[in-house]
Amino acid sequence: MNKGNGDTSYAKNSTVQREIISFGKAIVEEALLQLSVNNDIESMGIADLGCSSGPNTLSVISEVMDVVRAACGHLGRPVPEFRLFLNDLYSNDFNYLFMSLPPFYKRLKEEKGIGVASHCFISAVPGSFYARLFPTNLLHFVYSFSSLHWLSQVPVGLESHALKHLNKGKVYISKSSPQSVLDAYSSQFQADFSAFIESRSQELVPGGRMVLSFLGRTSIDPAADEGCYQWELLAEALMSLVKDGLIEEEKVDSFNTPYYAPSAEEIKAEIVKEGSFLIDRLEAFQVDWDGGAVTDTHTKQGKALIGERVAKTVRAVVESMLESHFQIGQHTIDVLFLKFAEIVGNYLSKTRTKYINFVISLVKKT
Amino acid sequence: MNKGNGDTSYAKNSTVQREIISFGKAIVEEALLQLSVNNDIESMGIADLGCSSGPNTLSVISEVMDVVRAACGHLGRPVPEFRLFLNDLYSNDFNYLFMSLPPFYKRLKEEKGIGVASHCFISAVPGSFYARLFPTNLLHFVYSFSSLHWLSQVPVGLESHALKHLNKGKVYISKSSPQSVLDAYSSQFQADFSAFIESRSQELVPGGRMVLSFLGRTSIDPAADEGCYQWELLAEALMSLVKDGLIEEEKVDSFNTPYYAPSAEEIKAEIVKEGSFLIDRLEAFQVDWDGGAVTDTHTKQGKALIGERVAKTVRAVVESMLESHFQIGQHTIDVLFLKFAEIVGNYLSKTRTKYINFVISLVKKT
Repeated sequence: MNKGNGDTSYAKNSTVQREIISFGKAIVEEALLQLSVNNDIESMGIADLGCSSGPNTLSVISEVMDVVRAACGHLGRPVPEFRLFLNDLYSNDFNYLFMSLPPFYKRLKEEKGIGVASHCFISAVPGSFYARLFPTNLLHFVYSFSSLHWLSQVPVGLESHALKHLNKGKVYISKSSPQSVLDAYSSQFQADFSAFIESRSQELVPGGRMVLSFLGRTSIDPAADEGCYQWELLAEALMSLVKDGLIEEEKVDSFNTPYYAPSAEEIKAEIVKEGSFLIDRLEAFQVDWDGGAVTDTHTKQGKALIGERVAKTVRAVVESMLESHFQIGQHTIDVLFLKFAEIVGNYLSKTRTKYINFVISLVKKT
Repeated sequence: MNKGNGDTSYAKNSTVQREIISFGKAIVEEALLQLSVNNDIESMGIADLGCSSGPNTLSVISEVMDVVRAACGHLGRPVPEFRLFLNDLYSNDFNYLFMSLPPFYKRLKEEKGIGVASHCFISAVPGSFYARLFPTNLLHFVYSFSSLHWLSQVPVGLESHALKHLNKGKVYISKSSPQSVLDAYSSQFQADFSAFIESRSQELVPGGRMVLSFLGRTSIDPAADEGCYQWELLAEALMSLVKDGLIEEEKVDSFNTPYYAPSAEEIKAEIVKEGSFLIDRLEAFQVDWDGGAVTDTHTKQGKALIGERVAKTVRAVVESMLESHFQIGQHTIDVLFLKFAEIVGNYLSKTRTKYINFVISLVKKT
């Protein structure tokens, strides 16, 4: 993620993620309501896994507290104390996030009468959520938005140091990728997602709940457009820079993104195998690549606009990854995303491919 | 604190703090031993208040775990799970601290067989320790090194926006300061320190322990050299820049540092007034301004060296404060600390004034 709040930062370019959050909101509300009805909780442990450092982070916290407060009001129960844990990788911009806490606490106090003194304790827990992060039975509610499509690493066998490049000219699963590439990706997903489920099952109390929202696909074909076409176009932009002599072809051949868009079946298989969660809901919905802001993509202006918006959204998330692999500076990154914006604009003016996003609501068995 | 790990960073200039930690180590060990003997703790909550972001932070954590593990070994008890909470102000460089966690976890695992998976959970809790930071009864052990001499704010009446400047040409209590300045400082200390004790008394379990180490004075006179002479010399350096036209005199007149070196009596008074802690130990010891590295200050070289070292130590801590008040850039800051180094070198070649550091070991009454 790009740090800070500049023009290319994640904080300023996370509208798609915000749209996904608002789609998932009803399911989060339902889960929190069920949690509150079925458990009388004095001190509620809540974790945001993959919290990032944008404005979305604190707005979700605020909504979660609102729902629980309202539910407790209905049930005639005292509102619990909230212990909120914000998790992301060690390299996340926690400094930026922490600087937004004082105004957040001030608003909480002014608007809702919630004082940090007794009701709401926010802390940060850095580390990978593909391993244990919290003591046993600490949490009542876990949510993770727009993070679980990121793998813990580039799939085994597809790393940049691999002797043979199996996925030449591509950066993710593509229609032309050999079966070995598809297998490497799905194996990595299975290993990661099962580690995630196992870790959380120890950290959540029995009856605890989890709402996960991340990109996937409805097709059983991992090379279906909905699951991977944004990467196809990024590879195209990269290859165009190869043609212009700005980056080496070998660098594209050796790059694969640590991302996976699983199917519902793949997700369910890991949850069932682990065995400690019931699937309460599993819903798929479509999301526009630009978060749905641009409606007319047939005009020249509309094409340019949607291309630019999508490019900014993708750039905010993948720039640091590209920089470190390709060893390129700001100027070449600018050229790359100008090219990518153009390619995306042209593509979306013809085919309005959308992302598929899953929202999954789970309950830990008692 | 200066961020990162550059030449002027706190991380690279915290030898005085390290010396203070090593002086306090025996008292920390004793407190942890008592805690372990008197309580059978399955999951131990430990907080470092004012953790900063230097190398000291993680080395203390490591030592604390070693002591508890050894104590449990002697007592024939299982080693508890450790929940470690790192606290500092919102503006602390937590990003830098978090980036040092992966190698730290790796070392823990390799050297001590402690896996994050089950034994050690580190989180960050940003905010002022002069208010509640943690849920009730969460903690077993609290320590705070080299932080409590910082007040929550510039004393009331001495703020930069005050209509009348009561402490002209000085930045802290000085022999020439009027009584109103002394009173403002001691009142602010009382308000802050009592808020600290009250908050911790709610967060610590009965029988929980706290070791506090911070600068103070043995003299009852708040204007005694041991309590304030470093600020006297900083004021002198600032006034020399006024003479050179680099900063405005009004800016010095309106600046007072949010610092206080209390006496043992002032400290005890607040602890006794609050009433929930027993004082197990209260010790005072002297610390060299440079952490004791330079022994011969009579040669020209020695004078320059000690001046430079002290200036770096002070700069790492106060630079951001000076920058924001005086609105000066890097160049003027450089000039200021060159001047300060010269003044300190001259002073220490004649009088080897030392800081007084307190270490206080407290037990929460059961």
